[in-house]
Amino acid sequence: MSLSIKEIQAPIAEEMRAFEGKFRQSMKTKVMLLDTIMNYIVQRKGKQIRPMFVFLTAGLCGEITEKTYRGAALIELLHTATLVHDDVVDDSNYRRGFFSVNALWKNKIAVLVGDYLLSKSLLLSVNNNDFELLKIGSNAIQEMAEGELMQMEKARKLDITEEVYFEIIRRKTATLIAACCAMGVSSVGADDETVEKARLFGEKVGVAFQIKDDLFDYGDAEIGKPLGIDIKEKKMTLPLIYALNQADWFTKRRVINTIKNESENPKKVAEVIDFVKKSGGIEYATKVMQNIVTEAQNILNTFPDTVFRQSLAGLVQFTIERSK
Amino acid sequence: MSLSIKEIQAPIAEEMRAFEGKFRQSMKTKVMLLDTIMNYIVQRKGKQIRPMFVFLTAGLCGEITEKTYRGAALIELLHTATLVHDDVVDDSNYRRGFFSVNALWKNKIAVLVGDYLLSKSLLLSVNNNDFELLKIGSNAIQEMAEGELMQMEKARKLDITEEVYFEIIRRKTATLIAACCAMGVSSVGADDETVEKARLFGEKVGVAFQIKDDLFDYGDAEIGKPLGIDIKEKKMTLPLIYALNQADWFTKRRVINTIKNESENPKKVAEVIDFVKKSGGIEYATKVMQNIVTEAQNILNTFPDTVFRQSLAGLVQFTIERSK
Repeated sequence: MSLSIKEIQAPIAEEMRAFEGKFRQSMKTKVMLLDTIMNYIVQRKGKQIRPMFVFLTAGLCGEITEKTYRGAALIELLHTATLVHDDVVDDSNYRRGFFSVNALWKNKIAVLVGDYLLSKSLLLSVNNNDFELLKIGSNAIQEMAEGELMQMEKARKLDITEEVYFEIIRRKTATLIAACCAMGVSSVGADDETVEKARLFGEKVGVAFQIKDDLFDYGDAEIGKPLGIDIKEKKMTLPLIYALNQADWFTKRRVINTIKNESENPKKVAEVIDFVKKSGGIEYATKVMQNIVTEAQNILNTFPDTVFRQSLAGLVQFTIERSK
Repeated sequence: MSLSIKEIQAPIAEEMRAFEGKFRQSMKTKVMLLDTIMNYIVQRKGKQIRPMFVFLTAGLCGEITEKTYRGAALIELLHTATLVHDDVVDDSNYRRGFFSVNALWKNKIAVLVGDYLLSKSLLLSVNNNDFELLKIGSNAIQEMAEGELMQMEKARKLDITEEVYFEIIRRKTATLIAACCAMGVSSVGADDETVEKARLFGEKVGVAFQIKDDLFDYGDAEIGKPLGIDIKEKKMTLPLIYALNQADWFTKRRVINTIKNESENPKKVAEVIDFVKKSGGIEYATKVMQNIVTEAQNILNTFPDTVFRQSLAGLVQFTIERSK
């Protein structure tokens, strides 16, 4: 019953193709070094889930317009900017199986390229007087930066409640998918109430998306993906938070001390993974994720039943069933 | 005849004080780590030359309004964001005599703090529907990132003409001062022609400001400041470009080879400095700077003769006479 990415894309296949050309165009610059890097980035693009959310939600509420394209480009530029900066933040040398910008051109250039992409993203709306899109976009940048910083702050202390976990992932991940959906419907002239409804739908999908991502750290991923990276980096995610809440005081102290002092030791990380699994952390997080997806689908079902709605339902299912 | 910073500030002293409070307020956040960093940044603020340009140019054309304050805050947030990112870009551990954000909290946090400040800066205008301010601001971010990247690209090749030098400093430095002046007059409702005139005035001041900065590398600075940093980093600035243009083919090759291969050697750097001085590079750059300042003052003189105009004339003089 699950749809493939190709089936999901069917109602907006033409738009996605046209978008690719427009997006490349929007990245053009006269600075040669920058142009080289932009080409490198465009050639290694991802699945473009975010533009898909923009086009599909737009289709849900009206006729896709030039403004929808600008919304999708704004989001994709902004997303690319945060990926380039994230690789600096995480000191990561790879992105989508290729070298990251900071690995090839050093951190200093990656920081500037990210800034450039951010400004490009905003200028696109500024120059077209897309005030609402801009508002949604700048809010997203702020929320994302706050979310990442909040995560770093909390990671140091290793005391993180479910509430704080949801606050962090809402900001750092869900904000952008929420922005996609809000922009999509806003670009076709939907009223404030509908924009808010679409935003909330996207936020729930984004939260589910991140829980899925966090579950991969416990082996719910394609074969060969390394496990326990989050634990190694002292990132506390839902399965672990739940497991710790179930544990007695002594076990809790022991696990936290392991994460604090021995997270570089793969054997110790494996022990933590084992502890989480035995405590039912995986089942719990999966259940929570499914509940949130159901809430998202319920919101979606208040929109008219069209091919766009079916595709969106498929896209939501895809985000929690994907294998990487 | 030169005015002190205090005298320059006199007509806007009250506004600058009120601005400080508003600026602190605009940096507030619920994320604790971020709040700590924001406080650290605010306490170590610079001379606030840029807000002064905003308020003084606003006074030149009308009554200072809330929008002027927002323009000044937008600029100062944006400027602070670029400083935080610049310190990552330059791997610099100090800023204004204190540790830089990246030195105290690491690069990853500095990148996010910069992004946060950029979004704050833009949101300030977005939330107040200051569309023109936003346009000026986002354009500035783009130009600055392009300018820095252009400089890096050219630095590698060590072939840089006067034309390219001016293009780089216009983008990386002058853009922001130009933006201050354009925002100042725009915030009090000046027409497009006046905004463009103010922008051009600011651009010329900014170019002169950067030439002055580049001259410091040759000893035109307060005692004790290290010389030849630009040469060490293979940044070609106006005095050197001029000197190379005057040299015969053989000397030119020799100096370029020294910069390319021996710029880590202080004795060799001293030789390059000596070469530039003997070729008249300092006098030339100083003369060019003064001509540009005259052009700026001529533009300024087309505005009505008020205390604001006198202060601006003093501020322009200050930027090229400052000792650091």
